[in-house]
Amino acid sequence: MIIILKPNPDQTELASLESWLRGLDLDIHMSQGQTSTIMGIVGDTTVVDIGQVRMFDIVDDVKRVQEPYKKANRKFHPKDTVIPLGAGSVGGDSFTLIAGPCSVESEDQILEIARDVKAAGAQALRGGAYKPRTSPYAFQGMREAGIALLLEAREQTGLPIVTELMDAADLPAFTDIDVIQVGARNMQNFALLKELGKVDRPILLKRGLAATIEELLMSAEYIMAHGNEQVILCERGIRTFEVATRNTLDLSAIPVLKELTHLPIIVDPSHATGVARYVRPLSLAALAAGADGLIVEVHNDPAHAKCDGAQSITPAAFAELSDAIAEMLPIVHKNAIPPR
Amino acid sequence: MIIILKPNPDQTELASLESWLRGLDLDIHMSQGQTSTIMGIVGDTTVVDIGQVRMFDIVDDVKRVQEPYKKANRKFHPKDTVIPLGAGSVGGDSFTLIAGPCSVESEDQILEIARDVKAAGAQALRGGAYKPRTSPYAFQGMREAGIALLLEAREQTGLPIVTELMDAADLPAFTDIDVIQVGARNMQNFALLKELGKVDRPILLKRGLAATIEELLMSAEYIMAHGNEQVILCERGIRTFEVATRNTLDLSAIPVLKELTHLPIIVDPSHATGVARYVRPLSLAALAAGADGLIVEVHNDPAHAKCDGAQSITPAAFAELSDAIAEMLPIVHKNAIPPR
Amino acid sequence: MIIILKPNPDQTELASLESWLRGLDLDIHMSQGQTSTIMGIVGDTTVVDIGQVRMFDIVDDVKRVQEPYKKANRKFHPKDTVIPLGAGSVGGDSFTLIAGPCSVESEDQILEIARDVKAAGAQALRGGAYKPRTSPYAFQGMREAGIALLLEAREQTGLPIVTELMDAADLPAFTDIDVIQVGARNMQNFALLKELGKVDRPILLKRGLAATIEELLMSAEYIMAHGNEQVILCERGIRTFEVATRNTLDLSAIPVLKELTHLPIIVDPSHATGVARYVRPLSLAALAAGADGLIVEVHNDPAHAKCDGAQSITPAAFAELSDAIAEMLPIVHKNAIPPR
Amino acid sequence: MIIILKPNPDQTELASLESWLRGLDLDIHMSQGQTSTIMGIVGDTTVVDIGQVRMFDIVDDVKRVQEPYKKANRKFHPKDTVIPLGAGSVGGDSFTLIAGPCSVESEDQILEIARDVKAAGAQALRGGAYKPRTSPYAFQGMREAGIALLLEAREQTGLPIVTELMDAADLPAFTDIDVIQVGARNMQNFALLKELGKVDRPILLKRGLAATIEELLMSAEYIMAHGNEQVILCERGIRTFEVATRNTLDLSAIPVLKELTHLPIIVDPSHATGVARYVRPLSLAALAAGADGLIVEVHNDPAHAKCDGAQSITPAAFAELSDAIAEMLPIVHKNAIPPR
Repeated sequence: MIIILKPNPDQTELASLESWLRGLDLDIHMSQGQTSTIMGIVGDTTVVDIGQVRMFDIVDDVKRVQEPYKKANRKFHPKDTVIPLGAGSVGGDSFTLIAGPCSVESEDQILEIARDVKAAGAQALRGGAYKPRTSPYAFQGMREAGIALLLEAREQTGLPIVTELMDAADLPAFTDIDVIQVGARNMQNFALLKELGKVDRPILLKRGLAATIEELLMSAEYIMAHGNEQVILCERGIRTFEVATRNTLDLSAIPVLKELTHLPIIVDPSHATGVARYVRPLSLAALAAGADGLIVEVHNDPAHAKCDGAQSITPAAFAELSDAIAEMLPIVHKNAIPPR
Repeated sequence: MIIILKPNPDQTELASLESWLRGLDLDIHMSQGQTSTIMGIVGDTTVVDIGQVRMFDIVDDVKRVQEPYKKANRKFHPKDTVIPLGAGSVGGDSFTLIAGPCSVESEDQILEIARDVKAAGAQALRGGAYKPRTSPYAFQGMREAGIALLLEAREQTGLPIVTELMDAADLPAFTDIDVIQVGARNMQNFALLKELGKVDRPILLKRGLAATIEELLMSAEYIMAHGNEQVILCERGIRTFEVATRNTLDLSAIPVLKELTHLPIIVDPSHATGVARYVRPLSLAALAAGADGLIVEVHNDPAHAKCDGAQSITPAAFAELSDAIAEMLPIVHKNAIPPR
Repeated sequence: MIIILKPNPDQTELASLESWLRGLDLDIHMSQGQTSTIMGIVGDTTVVDIGQVRMFDIVDDVKRVQEPYKKANRKFHPKDTVIPLGAGSVGGDSFTLIAGPCSVESEDQILEIARDVKAAGAQALRGGAYKPRTSPYAFQGMREAGIALLLEAREQTGLPIVTELMDAADLPAFTDIDVIQVGARNMQNFALLKELGKVDRPILLKRGLAATIEELLMSAEYIMAHGNEQVILCERGIRTFEVATRNTLDLSAIPVLKELTHLPIIVDPSHATGVARYVRPLSLAALAAGADGLIVEVHNDPAHAKCDGAQSITPAAFAELSDAIAEMLPIVHKNAIPPR
Repeated sequence: MIIILKPNPDQTELASLESWLRGLDLDIHMSQGQTSTIMGIVGDTTVVDIGQVRMFDIVDDVKRVQEPYKKANRKFHPKDTVIPLGAGSVGGDSFTLIAGPCSVESEDQILEIARDVKAAGAQALRGGAYKPRTSPYAFQGMREAGIALLLEAREQTGLPIVTELMDAADLPAFTDIDVIQVGARNMQNFALLKELGKVDRPILLKRGLAATIEELLMSAEYIMAHGNEQVILCERGIRTFEVATRNTLDLSAIPVLKELTHLPIIVDPSHATGVARYVRPLSLAALAAGADGLIVEVHNDPAHAKCDGAQSITPAAFAELSDAIAEMLPIVHKNAIPPR
């Protein structure tokens, strides 16, 4: 961490800043320039609150040299994290397809979709039982009954289950769920993240609509710092001024995250665009950019889906997408990322 | 709600759409133009999921004429909601000053600040006991002990207490708290909003960093639909590309919200800018724009605050701000808003 | 165009609105619902200024059914526009690689880079002679001398030249330039667009940092409406809150634009990210998403480039990228876009 | 400027960086820490292209300590710039009201509005003769004829004229215009800015839709560096995700700009919101935040304005706003800004 002092800093203030930093077990390396004094701070600066440094009147600016996350940081953990999922895994050399409906609606619906996406090559089934909805008047999900149907679909197809948890109080219902999803709107629900740090299953952490890449990693760090290092990151679009798509899918985040972290990164083209016919081009683009997988909304009857039908593709379209991916995979996969 | 159909819609699809709409207790008014057919949907369209309409292949576009919120809607509740707070109230003709530190740090700290802000004219004390922090390594608040100190400050000063709840599981500790705050990062934590709908105290609901004004109102609607109509809205800056301030304070939201809703709206200039010396100009601007009050961070020793010192003003600066507000109030207050 | 009237519209105002619309050669189809009246407007509504409709007091809302652009609209021109470029072309079945330095710096520099990118498979040479720089103190380009060097590079390599024009007054210097580029900051410099409508060479139109996809098409429409239908669109990143990359590359724009327009769309991964090592993954992603080509910054000595060295790749890295594209092309190309 | 080097920098590269910096007449102050080496760069660093520094492989990061603008910088010019305008002035202790229609439409229209806004207290008349319009099919302004009508309005009312120039080629028509406006879309039209640097009249420079405050100041610096130091800055809303208003008015920019620059700053609430009924609250808020004036759209018949009628207020509403400002002024004005 570099602290740039204002010209002619008050010496009492400076002593106070120095003593505060030493109290955090940090070493200080002063360097006196002609126009300004620079303090180089050495040690575990992840514990320093940058806002607190800025409040010292004598401080002109502060700059982190180290990232504020440790466990998620590739510098301290160069190898890709690989997370087991059913018969396969996420991260490393794998490319993982997770597919299923926005929400579980009935036994018939979820079983039919589960069979279809399995036949088309999906490695896991997604489906919402507890649904975060902007309107209190919209369908809120089948809750426990939905979880039961997902587990039945797993029994019939062998596909591991990915589903969203909105409230730590509902954790008992998730005992048999394979991957617990944190939705974009809860990415900084720190109470929830802490609880998920105590869980022994992988967490799929979606990027918030206004979250920077660093904040996404800090949320992963929350889960990891509380004991659970199995975190799968998910880019699902950020909020911008553009209205042609629901959100703006930030595929640049893939190579940026590949540099900064060892955690796997998958992409959700369905929520990013909100439009079924853009799912295919952006899925292939995500693969080409170096993503570790996709989570795609598939519905057997999009026109009558209880939510997000407009962004759901049919099982047939998913099968075609899966074929295109299989054809591209040997040539394209992780081709994009220069060797470290 | 207006549904615009594509040219020559498939008649089976159309019948299916009509029957679905009628199943929601809505009336349909068809109007056949030369190039397109328009369906006018009459009834309580707040129950309609607009995404679901869009999935019908024959639908070209959908437009709400009615807002998707009811209880928060000024159309159905023209008079300002006025919420009691201590000896005074929020909303209507009042202008309310809420002040205090980012977080409760010690008995001395909170008592001293409480006395100072009361002397300077604050009507309520804010202070964080449960702190949402981006980093798992940053100070997370004094929790129950912090709540106890806030209640002690209330006993000594008579100031009602405003403090943030992050997890419904902590509600028992908030039994004596006057106003429960929902932070920006939890604005769409729907599980939390539902629980707060069952509480009998006012909720201070902060706008999310990427939340539209309509989404803020939908989150208020969640609380209201679950039984608690005492919601105070708070504009605290949105995330944009500008980096000179931490967030961009959206003061246009004040007149927009005054039109759309009867709920009171206050402004947080401290979190919006992140810079203590911008608090005063933006506080006065909020007053001039028609806000119902302010929530301001005040710390007796900003340079050693455990969080957000850079945006905290001193008690002396707060007293000066309070004086400036008192002087402007008779001329400026709600002067901005044209009579309805 | 759909105009939704407020309940019980004033009849004099309504007559005035109707007469204004008829004066624009439009037909009106009234449809009386229970709660609101809807006017369906039929005819060439591209001439209607939507802001003007909104000012009528009786108007509640206005919605375009038709897009406000005609010549750029795929509805009226379903086939892909294919634009000749040197021995090849842009659009349709082609994938075009344009490469070269941010700015022309010397004869040696531009000739060496031109030979290198040609050898690596580039179909055109880019290079800035007139440079838009944020600072008046930064290098502003070699101007006429730069144009001369670019033309010399064309003579030696046969590569057609793409270079930016900032001011219509400089057009005489561009007489022999093959493709004239409009930079992102000039996308809505309407005076310049009009002049380029009178030019007989292709225009490469870059999307503005805060321009919607519709505004990009409206700027293309300016050029086309003034007589020049050879417009190549270029996605080069939009401005968002994310700071890990200079801009956020919006690859969703590719399939959206492919639907809306017949004009070719290329991608500039260099300006979008500002980081050389992200150029490769995003180039491959652009190809997979269905782009018609790339414009990439290549410099023989990035560390000493006079501008944008941080985002320039070396000729060797460009050759590797070109090979990866060649390998992917037969499988991936325009695979993403479902048949219309 | 602070340059942070990567650990163990290559010595040849380092020598190359040092020699390049010395070639720019800069002094280097090396400081060797335990984990990293920091170079403090002393001298006129406004000439350094920060991108160029970053390209050196050995550079980890670069930070400006000095702002990249000089002439616009309050550090080097502490006193407020005051710009004469008609009988009065802009900046310093003044609060300036500029008002008039979006575009000049006819002699009757502009003369009537000019008389009305003068009677209501405006110090200058605005009106568009050359109009930047998103659509090539929309009304493009009366051009020379519009300028002539504006000058006639000046003759009749004595009000100085503010009008927009889109193309330096049209400068001859602006010889008698008092203040030349640069529109938001041309804020980084550097060719235009350079030409305006040679003009002897004040320039009203509007902030671009996606321009940071620093970029706005760099554009002012362009004009000033080319010889014209009479620049009035104008905040007119930035583009964000919020759709309730056309743009998001960034009033925080007022105190930020007051710190950074000595140039006057006015606010355009009409373009910022796009809604006439929000003009009053945001005008009063701008005054309270410390702005030096307002530029407001006023039309005698908004419902039939040729552009932007929806955001234009009537002369009567302007007179009421002017009265409210006059009443607030003695108490509020520049009250917000703490003494430097």
